[in-house]
Amino acid sequence: MADRLTGGDSSLLRRINAAVTLRALRDGQSVTLTQLVGDTGLSRPTVEGVIEGLVESGLVAEVEHGQDGGGRRGRPARWFRFRAEAGHVLGVEVGVHDVRVVLADLAGEVVGGHAKPVDETLDPEERLGVVRTTVAEVLRKAGVSRDSLWAVAVGTPGIVDAEGTVRLGTAMPGWTGLDLGARLRRSFRCPVVIENDANLAAIAEHWKGAAVGKGDVVFVMAGLSPGAGSLINGRLHRGYGGAAGEIGALHLLGQEATPERLLSTTGKPLDPLDEAAVARVLRLAREGDEVARVATDRFLRRLVHDVAALVLALDPQLVVVGGWAAGLDGVLEPLREQLALYCLRAPEVALAALGTEVVAMGALRVALDHVEEQLFTVDPPSATGR
Amino acid sequence: MADRLTGGDSSLLRRINAAVTLRALRDGQSVTLTQLVGDTGLSRPTVEGVIEGLVESGLVAEVEHGQDGGGRRGRPARWFRFRAEAGHVLGVEVGVHDVRVVLADLAGEVVGGHAKPVDETLDPEERLGVVRTTVAEVLRKAGVSRDSLWAVAVGTPGIVDAEGTVRLGTAMPGWTGLDLGARLRRSFRCPVVIENDANLAAIAEHWKGAAVGKGDVVFVMAGLSPGAGSLINGRLHRGYGGAAGEIGALHLLGQEATPERLLSTTGKPLDPLDEAAVARVLRLAREGDEVARVATDRFLRRLVHDVAALVLALDPQLVVVGGWAAGLDGVLEPLREQLALYCLRAPEVALAALGTEVVAMGALRVALDHVEEQLFTVDPPSATGR
Repeated sequence: MADRLTGGDSSLLRRINAAVTLRALRDGQSVTLTQLVGDTGLSRPTVEGVIEGLVESGLVAEVEHGQDGGGRRGRPARWFRFRAEAGHVLGVEVGVHDVRVVLADLAGEVVGGHAKPVDETLDPEERLGVVRTTVAEVLRKAGVSRDSLWAVAVGTPGIVDAEGTVRLGTAMPGWTGLDLGARLRRSFRCPVVIENDANLAAIAEHWKGAAVGKGDVVFVMAGLSPGAGSLINGRLHRGYGGAAGEIGALHLLGQEATPERLLSTTGKPLDPLDEAAVARVLRLAREGDEVARVATDRFLRRLVHDVAALVLALDPQLVVVGGWAAGLDGVLEPLREQLALYCLRAPEVALAALGTEVVAMGALRVALDHVEEQLFTVDPPSATGR
Repeated sequence: MADRLTGGDSSLLRRINAAVTLRALRDGQSVTLTQLVGDTGLSRPTVEGVIEGLVESGLVAEVEHGQDGGGRRGRPARWFRFRAEAGHVLGVEVGVHDVRVVLADLAGEVVGGHAKPVDETLDPEERLGVVRTTVAEVLRKAGVSRDSLWAVAVGTPGIVDAEGTVRLGTAMPGWTGLDLGARLRRSFRCPVVIENDANLAAIAEHWKGAAVGKGDVVFVMAGLSPGAGSLINGRLHRGYGGAAGEIGALHLLGQEATPERLLSTTGKPLDPLDEAAVARVLRLAREGDEVARVATDRFLRRLVHDVAALVLALDPQLVVVGGWAAGLDGVLEPLREQLALYCLRAPEVALAALGTEVVAMGALRVALDHVEEQLFTVDPPSATGR
């Protein structure tokens, strides 16, 4: 990526000057060379040299502003802008029932996207096939070439290690042990990052959802196998092995009933992947069905216990509940009441704001972070230490 | 503190140069001016000026090395060393049954300490009285003047906010709502930091106990009202309101039995503060008493559940169990087994290494951090940002 930035010249100073100049341009407004000199604190010849390189690499364009209105003599002012269209990023969700792809430019503006329903029984080969065709379709419709991709991030259920291997993924056949990172990297020439879906949902809600402006956030992916993603000081907390927030196993302790049993109205446990059955029970409960109401209450108590465990461990400012598209509004009040009762310092509780795109949007944000780190970050040699 | 460092001259550059020079001296070896010039990268006149100021302020001393062995001509080399004895820090534990004070110099070398048993029924006035007399006694015995104290850190059970008020402290009478920070600051002219005891124990075990070299650590303060402290990337995770790790309330959910009931051999719950009764049950269980064994098993299952909740939420590398001086060795194996069964990625489990001084030592480390931040840290104006 450094090559794209400086046209092959890897000098640290040139890289820093380029980053400083790009940051001054990043908000999308076009600015004059003179303004850039003022904004960056660099000398005019330095800025001219940097801009020349950035224009060559395609990251900056000179803008025609016609005549200066000021009527001043001398050279007309030269205007420049950041070319957000110089590259693109992909956010992908590989879920149990959907494969979802979102495409954005380097400024994070969404320029395309598509979701395809998939069968929960698909094996990894078939599922990855759907990912590839959906990506190809999205790129084609947006008129974006694959070479224009600078970073891809992918969200999926399960514990994912830093290299992108699924250490444990019980939601989909053949998922545990899959080297998802290596498999997907074959389809792209840019970096590919794999991340747990609840972690990405936390990032997305913090970016543009219910958690904007809150640094200490737990996102609870409600469901029969609940998971969670946590931000601490605005940064994702993955845990030592990427397993942080996997509270779904808590009910296994002490032989307590599983969510599938708790939410059953028939005495027979629900299929953990049957979201329609879950939605039906929640809807019946809202409509006043007594058996469904009792089952829902049982299930909510279990969810509250899981969330309380997270809250007691992490003490977040805000808990965002999402995961199921429908039927979760009934969760908020009991959750607030119970957390206030049992937690020593009860957090705020809110419903997720981003809906079904939350995981793919979180992936998009991670891909953008990757790009911005290359483009805009200036890391001076640290003088602190211990 | 900046005043002590630069003799009243608050110029940023002088402060940075002083910090750079002190860091080159901090390991306690005496070094020559020429070595300092090499180590710091500063000019000889700058180092001379900085050293002059540091000698004046008492932080550096010139050392007599007699004749140079090298036989070279010219001025004899001048040797200097950091005067760790120029200041002191205090680590204090205000516990239910003990008040403990540890005194160290600026290099962290312990030069004094004392613990006084106190009655669990003492009110805050009486308890703080014991703290004051114990501190006075430790200072007197070590021949250290109160003015020589640069920082004091204090550990106590309960939720403590950033300003040092105990938001919730059920272990000691009158503790909830107590502005412990303000109360103790009256006795000292240096900064006083208040912190939760389990948090300090985590810091201490990371400093020189079972968690040396491990960045993601949960310290479990086992007991009838268990608490925990967590380090993430080697830094304390306090939570948004200082309540992180307060898992003791988890058993309240779902009307599960309390630890006091679980560990009882009589059907009557134990007094949560009666550590002797707890130790008796654990000892009886080790000796083969069947009723005590069943009670201990019940209690351990509860502890395992609490620890599992923490582990699932945080995914640490290492869990350190401490808190009770005796009887915890029986915890390790069942804890390891159960965590391996129920946690998606089981952490290492170890017993605490520091014993009864763990909280006071953690406090000492926090006080030292405070001092070192003033003395040795060079914060260049950051060039990054987003």
